[in-house]
Amino acid sequence: MTASTSTTRDYVPSGPFAGRFGPAIALKSRETGRLTELGPFSIDPETFGPLEVAYDFGPVTRKDIEAGPASLWRYAPLLPVPRTAEERPADLSPGWTRLLKSENLARRLNLKNLWIKDDRDNPTHSFKDRVVATALAAAKTLGYTTLSCASTGNLANAVAAASARAGIDSVVFIPENLEQGKILTSAAYGTKLIAIKGNYDDVNRLCSEIADDRDDYGFVNVNLRAYYAEGSKTLGYEIAEQLGWRLPDQVVIPVASGSLLTKVDKAFQELIALGLVEAKPYRIFGAQATGCSPVAEAFDAGWDVAKPVRPDTIAKSLAIGNPADAPFVLDIVRRTGGAVAAVSDAEIVAGIRLLAETEGVFAETAGGVTVANLVKLLDDGRLDPDAETVVINTGDGLKTLDAIADHVGPAATIDPDLRIFRQTIAAL
Amino acid sequence: MTASTSTTRDYVPSGPFAGRFGPAIALKSRETGRLTELGPFSIDPETFGPLEVAYDFGPVTRKDIEAGPASLWRYAPLLPVPRTAEERPADLSPGWTRLLKSENLARRLNLKNLWIKDDRDNPTHSFKDRVVATALAAAKTLGYTTLSCASTGNLANAVAAASARAGIDSVVFIPENLEQGKILTSAAYGTKLIAIKGNYDDVNRLCSEIADDRDDYGFVNVNLRAYYAEGSKTLGYEIAEQLGWRLPDQVVIPVASGSLLTKVDKAFQELIALGLVEAKPYRIFGAQATGCSPVAEAFDAGWDVAKPVRPDTIAKSLAIGNPADAPFVLDIVRRTGGAVAAVSDAEIVAGIRLLAETEGVFAETAGGVTVANLVKLLDDGRLDPDAETVVINTGDGLKTLDAIADHVGPAATIDPDLRIFRQTIAAL
Repeated sequence: MTASTSTTRDYVPSGPFAGRFGPAIALKSRETGRLTELGPFSIDPETFGPLEVAYDFGPVTRKDIEAGPASLWRYAPLLPVPRTAEERPADLSPGWTRLLKSENLARRLNLKNLWIKDDRDNPTHSFKDRVVATALAAAKTLGYTTLSCASTGNLANAVAAASARAGIDSVVFIPENLEQGKILTSAAYGTKLIAIKGNYDDVNRLCSEIADDRDDYGFVNVNLRAYYAEGSKTLGYEIAEQLGWRLPDQVVIPVASGSLLTKVDKAFQELIALGLVEAKPYRIFGAQATGCSPVAEAFDAGWDVAKPVRPDTIAKSLAIGNPADAPFVLDIVRRTGGAVAAVSDAEIVAGIRLLAETEGVFAETAGGVTVANLVKLLDDGRLDPDAETVVINTGDGLKTLDAIADHVGPAATIDPDLRIFRQTIAAL
Repeated sequence: MTASTSTTRDYVPSGPFAGRFGPAIALKSRETGRLTELGPFSIDPETFGPLEVAYDFGPVTRKDIEAGPASLWRYAPLLPVPRTAEERPADLSPGWTRLLKSENLARRLNLKNLWIKDDRDNPTHSFKDRVVATALAAAKTLGYTTLSCASTGNLANAVAAASARAGIDSVVFIPENLEQGKILTSAAYGTKLIAIKGNYDDVNRLCSEIADDRDDYGFVNVNLRAYYAEGSKTLGYEIAEQLGWRLPDQVVIPVASGSLLTKVDKAFQELIALGLVEAKPYRIFGAQATGCSPVAEAFDAGWDVAKPVRPDTIAKSLAIGNPADAPFVLDIVRRTGGAVAAVSDAEIVAGIRLLAETEGVFAETAGGVTVANLVKLLDDGRLDPDAETVVINTGDGLKTLDAIADHVGPAATIDPDLRIFRQTIAAL
């Protein structure tokens, strides 16, 4: 495996979809680098490894991007989508989320220069709105008429909302025993919600069968996966642009499948190759929960691949026991001088509370994982406290209230009496 | 009562806070127009009516504003706050939320030109982040060291989050019997949450006593109310700027205390007076729930004031039975040729679902009220279907899941079997 800018100048695009994905010219095997035509493919038939999108960007300037909309579509010239909004499905204008300078948390951790990239600002309050946006655009180009996914949470919300806005059908598959709150947040959008009698593995297996069976269903993270994954690059682009067209020294990124981490690295590499930022060393750190830490374990053991685990953590949005992109994550963190670490459920809760109490950002469990790993990596001396650091919060605490239910609450319960209040508050 | 631009050129500011609230020069009685010095006052001692902020803006250009940040602080030259970020407390960069063009809902309602101003994009996902931002800035200027409020929902979230970010103490008062979910969304930020044995009226009474008792507590909607309310103007400014510096023909706004509606009108009047938009007629419509519709009743009856009611509606964030700004709302909607209408709880649920299913925007009950009133006002012929219309969604469906719990859910529950799926989906 080699680092690649995925800019491929000698390939001649072919096939029915050539020229229909903006700057994208081919699909490329992650393992072998072999280029094949664009289409509804996500697996390299030779290696059974993932395919990713390869581009010929041509010149792209900061000014082009800055003149674009306040959404991830300002980066359309860098994504596998048609350049103009009219050629894409209607959307909720995801992305361009807040990059918040941290003073309080930075001070607490003795960090010199810390930023929080807060992806709660997306339309359904997680970074999944980004990947669904590029998947939906691809679905339209590829002729799928139904957008679909298996999910228990953020992805289901994002697919249901984006489909409603675009005016296309959606079918979302969930395990039957999902909590009602999580059902409602997708069902509200009028998606066809199909509850499956079985566990999440059963749901996924059925979805693979349906993807093979029907040519009208675009599963965002199955047959649309190559395009879907590219949406994550926009988080990397935004960090660089919001810093003033500069790469940070260190980034801490949650790892589920590992795709997000690899795409932030890809984004940084592309920005350097295009001359949009200065080339400089940066270190990428992966954050996992000990209840599902196959990549952190592989990192510690010096392995090139991860050993699958059975997830058991409150960070359910990161609970992927067999992460598809583990080898690429391991490669990137080693190449950049980073690391992959893991924290306990108790540390995750502490991480959620620390971020909320110091910065007013209420993260879901995945954000707690990231902040707790920031603390741990600093304690272990693996993060440089003097280097400019960005942590990515990928989701919203409103969706994982259970995680903090036993940990926070009223400081006091009192009668409506001024004298009693005075005594109470003096003692708090 | 008269329409006013609140730009007052002959008044000479005085008192210890003169010059410390940016372009604000005085507090003004809403009833008599009399100007008094800036300070920690919200009630006119002569009339016991509300005080509001009066300004001497000086010249403000579109270019000045457009050069500002992508937050409500781009309008700092029009708010009672110091102009530079360094003079204000740290904040979460609220405002500058998405204005979404509606195609699907517009088509469904035979509306020619509809926009949705989606204030879910704020840091705690409601428009309360705007008013808390200006209240917090005023609290700092006025020397309060604790930010406080009584609230059961959005306001509590906003105060807790903003205080954490600013690094100042906060105390939030709630009724003891509040649902755990609503407790957690404020408690997460580490605010001192005080549960009161009593109902919401008991909580409010205690807060008024505390506001009188302690000079270190700034209650955002009591002693800081004049400054707090000004934050709502930014919704009006943003609508105009995002339309390309143009006022819409019609706006539909939820009415609780009525403050938001009056401030959107104030914003439009100010933009006209400053020459930032062309003067043109616009009509403002108020949206209430029939379970708490004192202003709609007064409008229908031709009264100048509202008769207090006991609220009984699922739209709890609008459940103010004795709205302080009712006379001003009635004046504005009559002056502009609008109306105040009300919808049932069933219509509210239908409104939430309609907006989510057509546009992918999952609103809280207050948003359901607004959309349902849009439908009703069109049906009644009071809204012009050919005129450019904006509806304001003030909050997030994740906070009021109960409202839809009995109404949406899985379309089917099936075994993980391809054949069964085929039959099921064909029948849906």
